[in-house]
Amino acid sequence: MGTCINHPERETSYLCMKHNAYLCDECLQCRDPELYCKFRESCAIWFMTKKKAGLDADVAPDTAKDAPSEHRVVFRPEGKEIRVPEGTTLLEAARRAGVHINASCNGKGACGKCKLVVTSGRAQRQSTPLLTDSEKDKGYVLACMSKVSGDLTVRIPEEALQRKLKVAGMGQEATARLKGIVIPPEPILKEIPLVLDPPTLQDAVSDLDRLKRGLKKANCDIDRLNVGLPVMRQLAASVREENWKVTVAVMQRKCSNEILAVYPGNGGAPSLGLAIDVGTTSVVVYLVDMADGTILAAASGHNQQAACGDDVINRMVCAEKNGVRKLSRMALATINNLIYEALDGAGATADQVRNVVVSGNTTMAHLLLEIEPHYIRREPYIPTVTEFPLLKAGDIGLTANPVAAVFIMPGPASYVGGDIVSGLLYTGLHREDPLTLFIDVGTNGEIVLGNKDWMMTAACSSGPAFEGGGIRWGMRAEDGAIEKVTIDPATLEPENATVGDQPPRGICGSGMIDLIAELLKVGIIDRSGHFATDWNHPRVVTVNDEPAYVLVFAEQTPMKEDIVFTESDLKNLIYSKGAVYSGFTTLLAEAGLDFTMVERMVITGGFGQYLNIEKAIRIGLLPDMDRDKFAYLGNSSIAGAYMALLSEDYRTEALEICNNMTYIDFSSNPRYMDEFTSALFLPHTNLEMFPSIAA
Amino acid sequence: MGTCINHPERETSYLCMKHNAYLCDECLQCRDPELYCKFRESCAIWFMTKKKAGLDADVAPDTAKDAPSEHRVVFRPEGKEIRVPEGTTLLEAARRAGVHINASCNGKGACGKCKLVVTSGRAQRQSTPLLTDSEKDKGYVLACMSKVSGDLTVRIPEEALQRKLKVAGMGQEATARLKGIVIPPEPILKEIPLVLDPPTLQDAVSDLDRLKRGLKKANCDIDRLNVGLPVMRQLAASVREENWKVTVAVMQRKCSNEILAVYPGNGGAPSLGLAIDVGTTSVVVYLVDMADGTILAAASGHNQQAACGDDVINRMVCAEKNGVRKLSRMALATINNLIYEALDGAGATADQVRNVVVSGNTTMAHLLLEIEPHYIRREPYIPTVTEFPLLKAGDIGLTANPVAAVFIMPGPASYVGGDIVSGLLYTGLHREDPLTLFIDVGTNGEIVLGNKDWMMTAACSSGPAFEGGGIRWGMRAEDGAIEKVTIDPATLEPENATVGDQPPRGICGSGMIDLIAELLKVGIIDRSGHFATDWNHPRVVTVNDEPAYVLVFAEQTPMKEDIVFTESDLKNLIYSKGAVYSGFTTLLAEAGLDFTMVERMVITGGFGQYLNIEKAIRIGLLPDMDRDKFAYLGNSSIAGAYMALLSEDYRTEALEICNNMTYIDFSSNPRYMDEFTSALFLPHTNLEMFPSIAA
Repeated sequence: MGTCINHPERETSYLCMKHNAYLCDECLQCRDPELYCKFRESCAIWFMTKKKAGLDADVAPDTAKDAPSEHRVVFRPEGKEIRVPEGTTLLEAARRAGVHINASCNGKGACGKCKLVVTSGRAQRQSTPLLTDSEKDKGYVLACMSKVSGDLTVRIPEEALQRKLKVAGMGQEATARLKGIVIPPEPILKEIPLVLDPPTLQDAVSDLDRLKRGLKKANCDIDRLNVGLPVMRQLAASVREENWKVTVAVMQRKCSNEILAVYPGNGGAPSLGLAIDVGTTSVVVYLVDMADGTILAAASGHNQQAACGDDVINRMVCAEKNGVRKLSRMALATINNLIYEALDGAGATADQVRNVVVSGNTTMAHLLLEIEPHYIRREPYIPTVTEFPLLKAGDIGLTANPVAAVFIMPGPASYVGGDIVSGLLYTGLHREDPLTLFIDVGTNGEIVLGNKDWMMTAACSSGPAFEGGGIRWGMRAEDGAIEKVTIDPATLEPENATVGDQPPRGICGSGMIDLIAELLKVGIIDRSGHFATDWNHPRVVTVNDEPAYVLVFAEQTPMKEDIVFTESDLKNLIYSKGAVYSGFTTLLAEAGLDFTMVERMVITGGFGQYLNIEKAIRIGLLPDMDRDKFAYLGNSSIAGAYMALLSEDYRTEALEICNNMTYIDFSSNPRYMDEFTSALFLPHTNLEMFPSIAA
Repeated sequence: MGTCINHPERETSYLCMKHNAYLCDECLQCRDPELYCKFRESCAIWFMTKKKAGLDADVAPDTAKDAPSEHRVVFRPEGKEIRVPEGTTLLEAARRAGVHINASCNGKGACGKCKLVVTSGRAQRQSTPLLTDSEKDKGYVLACMSKVSGDLTVRIPEEALQRKLKVAGMGQEATARLKGIVIPPEPILKEIPLVLDPPTLQDAVSDLDRLKRGLKKANCDIDRLNVGLPVMRQLAASVREENWKVTVAVMQRKCSNEILAVYPGNGGAPSLGLAIDVGTTSVVVYLVDMADGTILAAASGHNQQAACGDDVINRMVCAEKNGVRKLSRMALATINNLIYEALDGAGATADQVRNVVVSGNTTMAHLLLEIEPHYIRREPYIPTVTEFPLLKAGDIGLTANPVAAVFIMPGPASYVGGDIVSGLLYTGLHREDPLTLFIDVGTNGEIVLGNKDWMMTAACSSGPAFEGGGIRWGMRAEDGAIEKVTIDPATLEPENATVGDQPPRGICGSGMIDLIAELLKVGIIDRSGHFATDWNHPRVVTVNDEPAYVLVFAEQTPMKEDIVFTESDLKNLIYSKGAVYSGFTTLLAEAGLDFTMVERMVITGGFGQYLNIEKAIRIGLLPDMDRDKFAYLGNSSIAGAYMALLSEDYRTEALEICNNMTYIDFSSNPRYMDEFTSALFLPHTNLEMFPSIAA
């Protein structure tokens, strides 16, 4: 038994031994060649499994007797067409025609993603709440909920095509940002093409020994080579299929190599890699061409685990109540949906993915791998694993070639994880002289202080406020999020900018920083975090008995509701920024240093695309240092994961970073509590610490 | 999904994470503690799985409401008793009472092994052809086919107890033969007891790092240590269960180690090992105490693959027709039945078995591991693997702890396999000065010539005649086999001795050699292999138009049929002995040597317990050398497997033997055909080669 290569959530016993790929019944019945394997034409075993499934490979469907009547379905704009029996779903028809339709829930009618527009002909539709009346009027259907009952022409809606272009476009942007960082790529799973000498009576060594001889010639260390039963079982057929031309996939571990697969022939489809950032709130996936490092597509989305709570503590409590498996499944579902989206955007198949790097905090890594996180949240806060061995995608359940090698970013402690190591890898703090203060503000805040000689790190419970958590209209920095705010001191009218110039739907981290700084400047709030009570202005209102500022009036929002910022929201953000700032001061004090000695300050995290440093200092989130010393780098975790995906040196560096960091536990540190209390003012109780603001 | 630890043929999804053991529904429902795990009382996960199965651990069966009426079953001679609901099978009742009953087919009514005698009370019996009328009259029932329908007393029949004593007794004999060869034992899977320091805030390394620190102190190389997901998933619970006392099972590979399991606590049930000889015809299993090398039990039986043909060629043809999986399953069924029998004889559980060595010819090894043997039988005769990596019992499907390490004896060529390497390991040919000729006559004949400086090897198609194959009354050397024969030249009456002094049921290899030598001596057959036609004697008869000698008359046999030896039988044996003898002469000639230079001759194989060297020379199976040079060692393959099970040095030596042998292919050697033709006389065409016989 194994999980279907196309649907990792399905267990199946049909294994294409040759390609080491499991296929579920649906995939087996499906005639879309991409869905099972690229070698299909020459794969005897594929035919075997197909026959096992009761299909006759040689009989075309339209010659079958007693079959239901057939109808023609045309898919626009591609123009592909197919004849299918009456009653076939449009999703199935699309698959048979080789037309990819996004369907995260696999045709269960649950995700609403497989929208099509029927432009002519008949489809028998089941009712669904996932289409609006306006969509229904325009002929929208869900492909999985609609059955063919006559000749049909359907169109993939513009927005789906746009989405596909977008994930490819995001890949181009990411490539522009990162390409050139790593050249030439060194994958984890090396694919070594070999041309072996055929055996003779005089040279009758075993197939495995012949393969090892070839690997030795290719400078692979064969003394440390392991090989598992599945590879041995298919070896004799694989080496002979293309007349002793093979490609060997070898995973290099610390002191041993393992042959994970032997493919017939040299060449084949390009080998791809995945860099994955599993955040507590957001997940980002890059699909990478392993030949040159080009990011072919990028996709991001919400971690489905959010249904179990906003922060890592709640996730762990949930795992204890409901079993870690549930949380693991949620993370996998999130990641695999994004992988599908990225593969779709790049027109690639999961089988091509042979290298994966996952970066995430310690709790996320444990939950993804279904490792009980029980002791992470209990004193003395012990994770089960900090340095993960190389794993295989099939063991975890990731959508990729089952033998794809998976490197999990190591993380030094329960509350400073692989995402931080990944971030450091990207910033280069550990390689350079300048004393640097690094902060990652995500759902939690992690701080690193140091340079190439030493590093100290700590975590502060900043909470998810800057990512939108616990803030009434808070949201991630995605389309429609207010990311910049200025308020006219005379009129109190705000000027907002949103991500993607879309109608405002909420406010993201960078917008909140701007907003607080502006509210403080115009006097709507005071330094202690209270709203002034003497304003008589339509934007200064009371919401559920607490004062609030109206950022956008209802008529300008798609929800037709006021986007407001309340005193509770402000309090939450002051707690968050106070936690971060007191983290800086405590860590510096532990090192016997102060801000004047810090030569560089690197900020990363989920604030949004732009972070206004000046305003962040004004609210006391960042220290009052020379503005030139600051750099905002966005999501550094995915960038480090990308680097590790492409370079053995960077993977080694990641392990070194992890081992060289000294972790300081704030939970038992009385100084931290004092510093925190002092930081609960705007910008701070002690204005001497913010001379440029005080002035 | 995995296979039940007690019933490897059953797939189940109930996993006791803590003990890394799968349990099928039946085992889960069963209240016999030995059947699931020894830690049951303290194993929370066991209770979890039990609850999952709908059982309430706290409610004793006799307090349940609406339950069917219960009855008492007493098992003699042990005297154990149990109350079970009406309708429970006696097999199930025995399991619940902790009474072991041999049931190879797992209660399907197919093997007929679970015989019990009902001495008082009522059992509702299903009819079965597996009990004779006489047995039924005596109250015999099959435990799996009989349901409790009232209070009962049953008795385990004497023969079952005897069988149990016998496998233990065979173990004692084997121990006497082999013990002392290896001291002290070095298992493949090292079990390292550790007492770890509990974590503190000051020492907050991960559980895995703490474990590695402990292993390092215990001199285990942790730089080369791999660990898989299943171990990581249970690690946090395992280390804490017995307050940081753990036992770590580490498998050492060439250049890397792997943690295969972490058990709570130090100590526990004794660790056991299995030495397994998988012959084409017979399979032998030794169950070994890994603490001191004592063989606790030994069991042997027929390879079920025999249904697919007598020799390796037919097995391979069968694998091509029906799939290698079928042959693999047959080998596994044979081996697993014998393992159960051995475990039963020793009163041990499969879970205790953590080390396994398998010795078999190249075809047997491929078939067992489900590796396609297609190219072994086709020129240029290429096996897929000759040196096998270390495997896990669970991957293969052997009845043992799923993480038990399995070492497969390496074999140098398609027709000289691991059984020969194992034999050499036992004889020590490769360690000593004297030039030695080694022959293993099993279903095939393999010859090795050499000493500590060099070794040549070849295979000759001797066929299975000496193991009983193709001989009308041929059989393996087991109870009732005629193993010694002398014929009175005056009366032509034979004097036979049988294995175990049982009534004669057939004739084994050593008996055949005796018989031919005697028939030749008294003149019933001539040197060309023909029966003399001029005898008028009740023992010289015609059977199906061919002459034959009656070895035992029908009334003296349990089958009530004459045991005869026909001219066809004789011809088969002459072919076999000719193939072996011409192998000797050809190999010597290839080395530029002759028999006079041979200082020692070692004979191993399945002839029987005693081999009459003099008579073997007289028929031309063995060369006419000084009788002192001969040694008959019985089954050397199992002996070598036993040695490799207990010693790392011997495992290394086995690999060296394999690499140091030069294989000579006879199939393309014209000299071999000439030598073979000359050897088809008794003892040989050229009597000068047998001076002592000619004299």
